[in-house]
Amino acid sequence: MRSGAEKVCILSLISSSALDGALCYMPKSKFQPRRIDRREFIALGAAGISALAAPLAVARELGDGRRPYGERSPFEHAMRSFGTSSTPGSGSARTPLQDLWGTITPSSLHFERHHSGVPTIDPNAHELLLDGLVERPLVFTLKDLRRFPSVSRIHFVECAGNSGREHEGRPGETVQKSHGLLSNTEWTGVLLKTLLDEAGLKRAARWIVAEGSDASRLSRSLPLDKALDDVLVAYGQNGEPLRPEQGYPLRLIVPGWEGNVNIKWVDRMMVTHEAFMTRDEAASYTDLMPDGKARWFTFVMEAKSVITRPSGEQVLDGRGFYEISGLAWSGRGRIKRVEISTDNGKTWTDARLDSAALPKAATRFSLPWKWEGGEAALQSRCTDETGYVQPTREQLISVRGLHPGPDGFNHFNGIKTWFVHNDGKVSHV
Amino acid sequence: MRSGAEKVCILSLISSSALDGALCYMPKSKFQPRRIDRREFIALGAAGISALAAPLAVARELGDGRRPYGERSPFEHAMRSFGTSSTPGSGSARTPLQDLWGTITPSSLHFERHHSGVPTIDPNAHELLLDGLVERPLVFTLKDLRRFPSVSRIHFVECAGNSGREHEGRPGETVQKSHGLLSNTEWTGVLLKTLLDEAGLKRAARWIVAEGSDASRLSRSLPLDKALDDVLVAYGQNGEPLRPEQGYPLRLIVPGWEGNVNIKWVDRMMVTHEAFMTRDEAASYTDLMPDGKARWFTFVMEAKSVITRPSGEQVLDGRGFYEISGLAWSGRGRIKRVEISTDNGKTWTDARLDSAALPKAATRFSLPWKWEGGEAALQSRCTDETGYVQPTREQLISVRGLHPGPDGFNHFNGIKTWFVHNDGKVSHV
Repeated sequence: MRSGAEKVCILSLISSSALDGALCYMPKSKFQPRRIDRREFIALGAAGISALAAPLAVARELGDGRRPYGERSPFEHAMRSFGTSSTPGSGSARTPLQDLWGTITPSSLHFERHHSGVPTIDPNAHELLLDGLVERPLVFTLKDLRRFPSVSRIHFVECAGNSGREHEGRPGETVQKSHGLLSNTEWTGVLLKTLLDEAGLKRAARWIVAEGSDASRLSRSLPLDKALDDVLVAYGQNGEPLRPEQGYPLRLIVPGWEGNVNIKWVDRMMVTHEAFMTRDEAASYTDLMPDGKARWFTFVMEAKSVITRPSGEQVLDGRGFYEISGLAWSGRGRIKRVEISTDNGKTWTDARLDSAALPKAATRFSLPWKWEGGEAALQSRCTDETGYVQPTREQLISVRGLHPGPDGFNHFNGIKTWFVHNDGKVSHV
Repeated sequence: MRSGAEKVCILSLISSSALDGALCYMPKSKFQPRRIDRREFIALGAAGISALAAPLAVARELGDGRRPYGERSPFEHAMRSFGTSSTPGSGSARTPLQDLWGTITPSSLHFERHHSGVPTIDPNAHELLLDGLVERPLVFTLKDLRRFPSVSRIHFVECAGNSGREHEGRPGETVQKSHGLLSNTEWTGVLLKTLLDEAGLKRAARWIVAEGSDASRLSRSLPLDKALDDVLVAYGQNGEPLRPEQGYPLRLIVPGWEGNVNIKWVDRMMVTHEAFMTRDEAASYTDLMPDGKARWFTFVMEAKSVITRPSGEQVLDGRGFYEISGLAWSGRGRIKRVEISTDNGKTWTDARLDSAALPKAATRFSLPWKWEGGEAALQSRCTDETGYVQPTREQLISVRGLHPGPDGFNHFNGIKTWFVHNDGKVSHV
């Protein structure tokens, strides 16, 4: 950029004060920033206006104009990746976790999973029917719902099948492939409890069935306790109306529970006495156990974490300092602790939890790390506020066995390992 | 949608239990949802599969396919609005606060303000020079910066001139026009302190000047205390790389301080002994006082709130229940309290703070309200954790007078009033 500036690598960098107490990882390391050669350095006095006006400018012409609705830089290309499916309209698109910062998933990159494609719905024609064991069956338009008291909460949504192939022993080469059916956004809507209070529950009411208006009419039963707790009928996501593939204009958000109960394009909810045993909860989305029986209604996504950087197919660009960073989440509440191992689980060090650890939301963790150039096996292990500790794959298999259910393995939350090779390449194990 | 269903307005709705303790506002009200006529209602047993399979489906065909990078529904049109400017390349585009939910501003709708348009910068060619009163002048590439320990924090950014016309007595007709130079996103980057530690501060260091790489080379001085506190050199926004109009690929984020010190497209920072008195802080961005002198370096954006719904040019669709909702933020820390008046400030009721009130971040507040059909003057008033209470316009004018500075009034944070007319139309006052 600035011609003539000879730049010299600095060997000393990363002073310990910068690194928030993770001292074990912090010897002076070879690092990337470069010192400006003394001959090129303009020695500035206390405050020399002329020096600031020195010819450092990149742009010399006016830039582009304003835009009513912005787009990302043409230099950026992160995108969702498609899984394969032999059923028309059925499939998933995974979030590129390796390319993301912080905790909020941009709506454009939130994972997709649907059974009959993405319907185009006119919000002015969309209505929600609430019937069954209620005193007053009701129909709500979008306009109606937006007049009710609203709440906004950051929550993860995770597909039950996320990282199921890890269970199977066919791990994903990248974190997008292995864990990309997990995203985290701010949802806005009406508490389902508010609508149930309007309708008035009959005595026999115990469950509620929600049904989507796409061609597959995916339907799931929820126990009423959960429906009256924190379930949202959501119309907003990250400040905007929901995106089409997230259920526009209306989606059930069931915090902490498997993705497929977060019914998209929802247009009917019926209060019932028993679970409905719909196709999507009797045939699919069950967990086959070693004795040949299947667990039904395993709703909660248990505590889980994964390192997103460095992760599979990334390359460490020389020895020295790196930040190990990733996401942790729990369907039972807040993440309390994340530990990181660089030696395949022999020793563990507490990571820093970066953002406010919100309940049933993804939390960013990080740990400074100096790579000496040898092999390393990176793992993360989280603990949630209930004290539950993320298990190993071996521990999970000892309970659940190795026989996949009708749609593969669901609810795998084992520890993921990324292997750093001598040459800096990172691969799955 | 569902033909033949006669729908009857319900007069009873909004039960008190739904409304989180704001009982004064909660008599049984006329509301929008409609009861399904008994003749049309399919009386369902406790759990009848056939009933669920009744012909309610909207979509009967497969929907659209997956997309690598999603877009919003074709039915949604919220957009930034452009202010006028006679200087080429200079101008602003305001966030449509009236159309947004929750607290996160989608990056596509984050307000813009620039002096020479939006430069197109190749991130691989962009470097940050850190020099001046440091032991080791350094140049950082993007790749370098991304190896440093990162932090992710949700912060508002507000233009100093936001709502300046309220001060002047020319209030905005909509909340987008009056307060749309305020947005709130998650920023990810390196603490500036980390970089200063790398470079090593010389004894005389007291200030730091940051300069943008756009054609205007907007430059601002920051006291070192702030630089060493919570200032970020940010490369991420809402999970993605920064958007071009937000400073791609690198922006200074100075939490809680006026927008223009959050230098976009930053490519140089120089440590100095004194403030630089750049054009952008000596001629512009000062506050003219009644005695003809100007206040310099009025960095902090004081506590402020505004009702976004109902707001100017919206129309209340008949008497009954509404939610009054808006945003509050403070450059000094967390929002502790928001009060709402519907009678032009005579009486006040505490609003509910919806999301976790994060420091120097926008917080959503809301209050259930029953509109009886008469005139109402809606106001919000916030208090931050320092005990500072948002003032009235009159209080501000008594101190600052009515003479605009070179670029109008900056730092206006007075209470905003929306007037509800008998016919339900909402206008500014």
